[in-house]
Amino acid sequence: MASPSDNKIKAIALDGLAVFDLRPVAVLTEHIFPGRGEEIGALWRRQQFEYTWLRTLGRKYIDFSHVTEQALLFTCKSLKLELTKADSDRLMQSYHELKAWPDALPALRRLKASGLRMAFLSNFTVTMLDQAVRNSGLEGLFESHLSTDRVRAFKPDPRAYEMATSSFGLPKEEIAFAAFGGWDAVGAKWFGYPTFWVNRAHATVEELGVLPDGAGKDLNDLASFVQAR
Amino acid sequence: MASPSDNKIKAIALDGLAVFDLRPVAVLTEHIFPGRGEEIGALWRRQQFEYTWLRTLGRKYIDFSHVTEQALLFTCKSLKLELTKADSDRLMQSYHELKAWPDALPALRRLKASGLRMAFLSNFTVTMLDQAVRNSGLEGLFESHLSTDRVRAFKPDPRAYEMATSSFGLPKEEIAFAAFGGWDAVGAKWFGYPTFWVNRAHATVEELGVLPDGAGKDLNDLASFVQAR
Repeated sequence: MASPSDNKIKAIALDGLAVFDLRPVAVLTEHIFPGRGEEIGALWRRQQFEYTWLRTLGRKYIDFSHVTEQALLFTCKSLKLELTKADSDRLMQSYHELKAWPDALPALRRLKASGLRMAFLSNFTVTMLDQAVRNSGLEGLFESHLSTDRVRAFKPDPRAYEMATSSFGLPKEEIAFAAFGGWDAVGAKWFGYPTFWVNRAHATVEELGVLPDGAGKDLNDLASFVQAR
Repeated sequence: MASPSDNKIKAIALDGLAVFDLRPVAVLTEHIFPGRGEEIGALWRRQQFEYTWLRTLGRKYIDFSHVTEQALLFTCKSLKLELTKADSDRLMQSYHELKAWPDALPALRRLKASGLRMAFLSNFTVTMLDQAVRNSGLEGLFESHLSTDRVRAFKPDPRAYEMATSSFGLPKEEIAFAAFGGWDAVGAKWFGYPTFWVNRAHATVEELGVLPDGAGKDLNDLASFVQAR
């Protein structure tokens, strides 16, 4: 890998889900609601992000953990499924026990070793990010977490993306953004970051007028993207 | 009905879909994609509103007609369905040929006759609203359309809801908002309007921390709500 002094990119801001694997939440959902896990999971995730957008637009921010819990409650009500408090607590707890995808640790270590600075820029709370980092043995790789709680605005509000330029003290062009969601890749590109879409979910490209600068399936592909800039 | 001078509510701001019926769009979708209409329609509508929220958050406003077309394109791509330009044009044209629900004309005439002022406060463009009003024989009932194009921010951005206080020249408490979407009822309530949810779709109440002041199935129920305030 070229040294960062030769490279335009000096730092990487990462979405939490570009690194952490939500599949255990899906497994637990299927365990609690046999045969319905996929349907519940799809609606829950969609509702979760819609609630972040609605609350940011309406100036009614609450943290992602609470948004996630309310989205779960809506999902079960709309599917006419009974959700006990105990099951809701278990599902929410699973969000606090996330671990990194297998490709993450080696790829992130290589990026760090090459001199790149890294930080999460995420809707997740600092507590959620701290727990996931610790559960995954990723300590020491990241600068301070840039949780949207700092600015009380979820992505794609520019106030959220702006945290990385402030925190790194670098211009946009020197910060690569690594997105998990197609919409987040669009938001980061709108804001002005060189943007890589870690499209682990093989999702369809959003029709929002811009494309990310690169896309791939995991953090090895992100490393190649950053190296080539 | 009490005269508006006795009544706290002096004006009503209405979402377009509280009045106009989207079912012909669904019929045409099913005609073009036999057996897939419902699935396409559900995803299209969801994508359409998500795009309004993302574009407003990202400061990338384009009008609702174009958002709707891009959402249709995404929907067909994500379902791996071929969408010809001709079919896309036909579906978009159907958005310009909307008519009011059968309850709308008599209920709106009664509201108007009682002295209430009325206007649309809608994501729809002025052209879409004009066409739908004309197609439905609703001319003369409404003041100037408050399209989100005026402020280049879709609901639930407060800039959108604020158009009614400015245009009517009335305080929030004297303007009832009639929403079609549960999220729009929440947004209007967040903003501060006495809010009625015309829940024609029998949708599940959103878990966003507030409830509308009233809910019902059509504009007759809206009229009763306004009368009782």
